[in-house]
Amino acid sequence: FKSKLPNLGTTIFTTMSALAAEHGALNLSQGFPNFAADPELLRLLGEYSTHGFNQYAPMTGVRELREQLSLKTKKLYGAHYDSETEVTISSGATEAIFAAIAATVSAGDEVIVFEPAYDSYLPAIDLCGGIPVYITLHYPDFQIDWDLVKSKISPKTKMIIVNTPHNPTGSVFSENDINELAKIVADRDIYLVGDEVYEHIIFDGLSHQSLCTNSALKEKSFICGSFGKTFHITGWKIGYCFAPKELSVEFRKIHQYLTFSTFTPAQYALAKYLENENNYLSIPSFYQRKRDVFLESIAGSRFEFIPSKGSFFQNVSYANITDANDAEYAIQLTKTIGVASIPTSVFYHQKLDQKVLRFCFAKDDETLQKAGEILSKL
Amino acid sequence: FKSKLPNLGTTIFTTMSALAAEHGALNLSQGFPNFAADPELLRLLGEYSTHGFNQYAPMTGVRELREQLSLKTKKLYGAHYDSETEVTISSGATEAIFAAIAATVSAGDEVIVFEPAYDSYLPAIDLCGGIPVYITLHYPDFQIDWDLVKSKISPKTKMIIVNTPHNPTGSVFSENDINELAKIVADRDIYLVGDEVYEHIIFDGLSHQSLCTNSALKEKSFICGSFGKTFHITGWKIGYCFAPKELSVEFRKIHQYLTFSTFTPAQYALAKYLENENNYLSIPSFYQRKRDVFLESIAGSRFEFIPSKGSFFQNVSYANITDANDAEYAIQLTKTIGVASIPTSVFYHQKLDQKVLRFCFAKDDETLQKAGEILSKL
Ligand SMILES: CSCCC(=O)C(=O)O
Ligand SMILES: CSCCC(=O)C(=O)O
Repeated sequence: FKSKLPNLGTTIFTTMSALAAEHGALNLSQGFPNFAADPELLRLLGEYSTHGFNQYAPMTGVRELREQLSLKTKKLYGAHYDSETEVTISSGATEAIFAAIAATVSAGDEVIVFEPAYDSYLPAIDLCGGIPVYITLHYPDFQIDWDLVKSKISPKTKMIIVNTPHNPTGSVFSENDINELAKIVADRDIYLVGDEVYEHIIFDGLSHQSLCTNSALKEKSFICGSFGKTFHITGWKIGYCFAPKELSVEFRKIHQYLTFSTFTPAQYALAKYLENENNYLSIPSFYQRKRDVFLESIAGSRFEFIPSKGSFFQNVSYANITDANDAEYAIQLTKTIGVASIPTSVFYHQKLDQKVLRFCFAKDDETLQKAGEILSKL
Repeated sequence: FKSKLPNLGTTIFTTMSALAAEHGALNLSQGFPNFAADPELLRLLGEYSTHGFNQYAPMTGVRELREQLSLKTKKLYGAHYDSETEVTISSGATEAIFAAIAATVSAGDEVIVFEPAYDSYLPAIDLCGGIPVYITLHYPDFQIDWDLVKSKISPKTKMIIVNTPHNPTGSVFSENDINELAKIVADRDIYLVGDEVYEHIIFDGLSHQSLCTNSALKEKSFICGSFGKTFHITGWKIGYCFAPKELSVEFRKIHQYLTFSTFTPAQYALAKYLENENNYLSIPSFYQRKRDVFLESIAGSRFEFIPSKGSFFQNVSYANITDANDAEYAIQLTKTIGVASIPTSVFYHQKLDQKVLRFCFAKDDETLQKAGEILSKL
C-alpha cells in the first residue's frame, strides 16, 4: 500500500487536545471555548428543529441567513453583497477556504501564503497542484513586508491567502496593509482568500480591516467567515463565503459537490439570532476581557509577549526559560505542569526555532487564572 | 475572467427544486422526505445542545456514534470495524465520497464509474486529475456486465465506485455482483468506494449487499453512508465512512482539512437514537409501503416501469407518451401539470435519449396519490 499523501500527518489540534485529555491538562491548545453558548441561540435551534426544518437547506444556504449576513456586512464594513448570488453558507470556514482554493487554483499556479499559516491552506493548495510561495513572518509582531510580497509575484501567481485577525499570531491588518495589498493586485489576475473567522474578536479599539472594505480587493476576494468562534459554537461548523457574483458561481460549483449544504435548523437559528446586533457587537469587549485576565495571570511570569490584537490566541516567548524547541516544550508542559498549548512553529512549512507558544484564552476565568498561576512558577 | 471549471453547471437537484417551487409543483425531484423526522430524535438533539455539547467534535467524530455504527455494521453485515481507527464521521456522505476519492486518486489514475452516476463523483475525480472510465447501464434493469468491467481494467485503474441500492435507478447488488467484483479486484491494487447511503431502504425481502460482507472487498473499500436518508433528516448532513485502518488514515488526512468535523449535538443525538435498533430496522417496510402507494397510483397510467428494488426512487419510461427528450419533458411536466421529477439521462456524461424519469417517493401518501392521479391523466 502506497500513500498518496505520505507527508501529511494528523492536525496538531487533534494531537494536542488528545494529549491534554490523556494528561488531564488545562487545554489552552485547540481553539474552542470551554463555556456555554447563549441559551437563546440553543433555544432557537430546538425550536426550528422541532418545527420541521430538517431537510436539505438550499445548496447556497438558507435565504434568511444569507440576508442577515449581507445586512451585517453592509452595516459593519459598508460593503454590499447580494444575498442571493454573492453569499454562500458552508460547512465551516474550513470548507469555504478549501472550496475557494479548489475553484481557482490549477496545477502549476502559485499561491502566496504567509507563515505561520493555519494548517488547512497547504493541503488544499497541494490537492489542486498549486505551488505555495511562502512569506515568513516573525515574532513578536509578525508584520508583513509588502515589498517582499511584491518581489514574490510572478506571472504564475494566482492567489494570495490573507488572514486577519490572524491565527495563530493575534496580529491584525491595518488600513495600510489593505492599501498595500490593493496596490499589488491592481491590474493583475490575482484572487484573494480572506480568512476572517475572527472578524468579531479584535481589541483595543482597533477595527477589523476586511478585504471587502476596499472595493478593488472586494472584486477579487473570497471572504470566508464562521459563526463558530463568534458565538461560542465551534462544534456547529457553519461558515460562509462572500464573493462577487462571478466568483461565487465558481465557489458554488465546488461547494455543491463537497458538502452540498449544512445543518439546516442551525442556519435558521443563526439567522434569527443575528437580528439582534448586540449578539455580535458585544464580542470584542467580551474577549478583550478574557485576554486581559490571561495576561494579568502571567504578568509575573518569565514569558515575554506583546498583547494579542485579535483572535482568541496569545503568543508568548519562553526564550528566557529554556532552550527546548517549542514542539518538545509544548508536550513537556502538558505532561509535567498540566497546561497544554500549541507550538507556533508547526504553522511554518520549515519549522523555525523561535521558542513561541500559542495559548487559547477562550476559557472561563478560573481556567485562565489557574493556568497563569502554574505558568508563572516556571 | 476565465473559469477553471467552465463545464460544471449547477446540480440538477437545485435546478429542479427551484423550478418546482417557482411553479408550485409537487416536488418528486430532489430526494428528500416531505414528512417529519421522529420527534424522539429531535428531542435528543435539543437535549444534547442545551446541555452543552456545542464545541468541536473530535476530527474522527463523536466516540459514542462511531461505536454505535460499528455495532450496527457487525450486527447487520457481520463485519468488524474498529470504532477508533476505522470509522469516521463526515459532513454527509457527499463529503465522505469526496474525501475517499481525494485520498486515493492522483493525476492520471483511472476510476471506473457506472452510469447513471450520482452527480458528485465526477467533479471529485476531475479535481484530483483522475480519468473517469465509464460503464453504461441501461433501462429497465440497469444490470452490470462484469465481463465488460473486466475488459476496462488497465494498469492505471485505481478505483471503482459502486452504489447499492442505486440512485437514480433503484437497482441493488446481488450476491453475485459482490462475488464478480471481488474476482476482478483480487490481486490488483484497486480501491473501492461503496456509496451505500440507501442501505436501509431496500425492498421485497432483498438484503443489502454491502462491500463489507466480502472480506476481500472490505480490505479495499471506503464504505460511505449517511443518516439523512435513513432517518428523514437530509438537512442534517451527517455521514460516515468505514474503511480498514490504513485507508482510514488516508481518508482522515483529507477530511481533517475539508471540514474537520461536523455538527456535534446531532452526533450525540444520533448515537443515542441508534441504541434502539427498531429505529432503522423499521425503515425498509416503511419505504416499501411508500413505493407501493406510488406504484398503485400510476398503475393505470401509460408509464412503464419495473418496481424499484431499493432507494426512495422509482424510474419510469414515458416512451409510450411522447418523443420529447427527458430533460425537456421533466421541465414540461413541472410547468404544465405541476409534478416535478428528475430526468435520468442527466446522470450520464453523454446524455442518452432513453426517455426515463426518476420520481422520489419519500413523500406523504397524499402527495404520492395526487401526483399519481395527475400523471395517470397523461
Ligand atoms: C479545527 S480545530 C482548530 C481550531 C482552531 O482554529 C485553532 O486552534 O487554531
Ligand atoms: C444533495 S441533493 C440530492 C438529493 C439526492 O440524493 C437525490 O435527489 O438524488
